[in-house]
Amino acid sequence: MKLVCLGFSGGELEDNYWQELDDLADQRVLVASEAELGKNTNADGLLVKLGAKVPKELIDKLPNLKYIGMLGTGYGGIDTAYATSKGITVTNIADYATEGVAEFTFGILIEWCRGVSRALGLAWDGVYEDDHHPGMEIKGKRFGVIGLGNIGMRTAELAQAFGCEVSYWSRTRKPEAETKGIKYQGLDDLLANSDIITLNLALNPETEGIINADRIKKIKTNDTIFINPSPMELIDFKALVTRLKQNDMVFMLDHSDEMTEEQLKELKLIPRCKIYPAIGYTTREAGQLKKRIYVDNLKNYLDGKPSNKVN
Amino acid sequence: MKLVCLGFSGGELEDNYWQELDDLADQRVLVASEAELGKNTNADGLLVKLGAKVPKELIDKLPNLKYIGMLGTGYGGIDTAYATSKGITVTNIADYATEGVAEFTFGILIEWCRGVSRALGLAWDGVYEDDHHPGMEIKGKRFGVIGLGNIGMRTAELAQAFGCEVSYWSRTRKPEAETKGIKYQGLDDLLANSDIITLNLALNPETEGIINADRIKKIKTNDTIFINPSPMELIDFKALVTRLKQNDMVFMLDHSDEMTEEQLKELKLIPRCKIYPAIGYTTREAGQLKKRIYVDNLKNYLDGKPSNKVN
Repeated sequence: MKLVCLGFSGGELEDNYWQELDDLADQRVLVASEAELGKNTNADGLLVKLGAKVPKELIDKLPNLKYIGMLGTGYGGIDTAYATSKGITVTNIADYATEGVAEFTFGILIEWCRGVSRALGLAWDGVYEDDHHPGMEIKGKRFGVIGLGNIGMRTAELAQAFGCEVSYWSRTRKPEAETKGIKYQGLDDLLANSDIITLNLALNPETEGIINADRIKKIKTNDTIFINPSPMELIDFKALVTRLKQNDMVFMLDHSDEMTEEQLKELKLIPRCKIYPAIGYTTREAGQLKKRIYVDNLKNYLDGKPSNKVN
Repeated sequence: MKLVCLGFSGGELEDNYWQELDDLADQRVLVASEAELGKNTNADGLLVKLGAKVPKELIDKLPNLKYIGMLGTGYGGIDTAYATSKGITVTNIADYATEGVAEFTFGILIEWCRGVSRALGLAWDGVYEDDHHPGMEIKGKRFGVIGLGNIGMRTAELAQAFGCEVSYWSRTRKPEAETKGIKYQGLDDLLANSDIITLNLALNPETEGIINADRIKKIKTNDTIFINPSPMELIDFKALVTRLKQNDMVFMLDHSDEMTEEQLKELKLIPRCKIYPAIGYTTREAGQLKKRIYVDNLKNYLDGKPSNKVN
């Protein structure tokens, strides 16, 4: 197999992973961009990074192509339908950041409930007691998880460990979760009845805008905390801003690149909206696991037992 | 019963609790300080706040005294031995802040592991991705709890829920914890073998300075995180500072009033030492529970079934 790593400079993987790829492939070439493909259009395998575009036109340039490996979960830039029609296997990396995102969710939740960063500042200024410091316990709160995939399920488990009353909504019922005491609620009911809500859905045509204007109105007005570590396209942005301006709920997001500068500016002006960078999934452990799976996906494909195939 | 609330201004309890106390006592008097006791030396009951001093001399001034109620856990200012000799019941309030302290422990742990407050600042500055941001997962780490009372046990349970390998040391073995998979280790071994350590001991003559110079040296040098939500007198301060200056471990404390200005200044200069105000136990929920128990302690005493009696 001739492997072309498109958009790679070499620093993306540690030496041991490059070595393993070299052991799997006959030839391995790093190519910075499509324009520099040159004679490498005879590639059998193509490795790409998150955000890469692999449209029909690029696939047509590579007549021998049999495998596309995405170093990430999202593969929206790859024309998978066309790849499928050409018999090309496309793989991605799922479930490498479950712990990272779930732990971060509780980190930013406790940051809000206890004012952790404010407290650091107080102590730095020599203030070691403060009657006005926020202090809400998680225990005993009604915790609603929207979407019970890997991250949603782990979030629900941790919420149970913290002593919350946990509910979920998911397109399909999850009996194994329900036997653990995670109760099913309709989406509208869950929004109306929860003190803390996390949104853990994948973005697709059915889920885009699922948290619509009507549903946003259902979120109760008593300082509900809504945490979104998922794409913002799941939410009707205009309706969200209108609601947040009422100052009767808290909204926190783990922002990746799906929002415009204008939207970010608008959210920044809202006191009870906290914007975090896209760091929920960027732990050392997740980074290593992701690379491990990346190399294993290629190995498994070559062994005839493809893993994380998305088409 | 004539109840004297010494050092109280009236704002310490909500109206409903004052009403309950009035229903329990024949007379209730708020006295700002001992100097203003005046004719109230005929008190049968004395209610005091955290930090109050009730030495032999004050007890001798109140010949009818039968009950002293402390609004807090620590009662070091009360001469309990002398109170006992006079047949006076002393009560305190234990186990009202277990959740608050345990949740705060994980809040400041995730703050360190994920740089939550740094992340808020980055996003505010428009930086939504950062390769240098810290990202350590809690899952899979060796978590050592020193002292398995209420707070230590709850901390250990949460650490297990986060997927840690949890060990404890306590003066007495706790079989019920061991059946849950919380392993016993000698104190020196626990210090040497843990990635994350929490100190959850009460301060008394046997525990004062228990984390001594030899033991501090045993803490492994690979960025161990040591969290102390307990009194700093448990630790040899000089030896701690010497170790922290090596910059090979992290130390976080929830500071109450046991340290000198000089000591605080010294700790502030150490980059991997994070000082928090004493807010681990100051949640709304804990505040309410504490007042509930305070009133109930008096009620139970009057009913002949004293609760939280410490002498």
